Amino acid sequence: MIGRLNHVAIAVPDLEEGIRLYRDVLGAKVSDPQDEPDHGVTVVFVELPNTKIELLYPLGEGSPIQGFLDKNTSGGIHHVCYEVEDILAARDQLLKNGARVLGTGEPKTGAHGKPVLFLHPKDFNGTLVELEQV
Amino acid sequence: MIGRLNHVAIAVPDLEEGIRLYRDVLGAKVSDPQDEPDHGVTVVFVELPNTKIELLYPLGEGSPIQGFLDKNTSGGIHHVCYEVEDILAARDQLLKNGARVLGTGEPKTGAHGKPVLFLHPKDFNGTLVELEQV
Repeated sequence: MIGRLNHVAIAVPDLEEGIRLYRDVLGAKVSDPQDEPDHGVTVVFVELPNTKIELLYPLGEGSPIQGFLDKNTSGGIHHVCYEVEDILAARDQLLKNGARVLGTGEPKTGAHGKPVLFLHPKDFNGTLVELEQV
Repeated sequence: MIGRLNHVAIAVPDLEEGIRLYRDVLGAKVSDPQDEPDHGVTVVFVELPNTKIELLYPLGEGSPIQGFLDKNTSGGIHHVCYEVEDILAARDQLLKNGARVLGTGEPKTGAHGKPVLFLHPKDFNGTLVELEQV
């Protein structure tokens, strides 16, 4: 069912420092910051040859990554995102296997403008998993 | 400097359950478990089209992932591994930029038989970063 690793998301408490680390210290290609007000984050894309790292920084009140940063004050890996061809078929197969989908269970439009779902970390080795239809 | 994302490592408290989740629930191609006694882990490779997920389970006394699992009892993302062409050049550039290399600072032979180094999570957004020479 799952295809490519679309991205690894890393929540950072200091976006300028995250950019400096990936661009200047690790020498990767780093995008300009993009505000995603619908998702409560500012995102910087680190482009690697085979996938992306996304640096996430809270935007506005009630950002979905604020709680994570309160607990992980240096930042940390927030989630991994796997690509699927058909997100509704993927969801139904997951539910049949006893996995929990976060929220209403209906796909939302993700930060890339594509349908996404998040799976409960407790069901996946303590890892928050995003599925994105491509 | 950094190239491909070689793998994302996820520490799991129950290897059979980790295999079941990735093989049967997420429908990915999963290897047989491989013991890596020199590294204190049993590894299962989840092969995605563009990279790998490695499920890590403690092997023997003093496994380097035991402390992580004691703190994260459901498991969790343990590290990301980026490829570099020349690990000594990479290390020297990192040190020049004030990043800390774990251990003696000399590369060790990693689980894939290639030279690796680990960087201090506090210097990289709370993320344990492995560099592997390819």
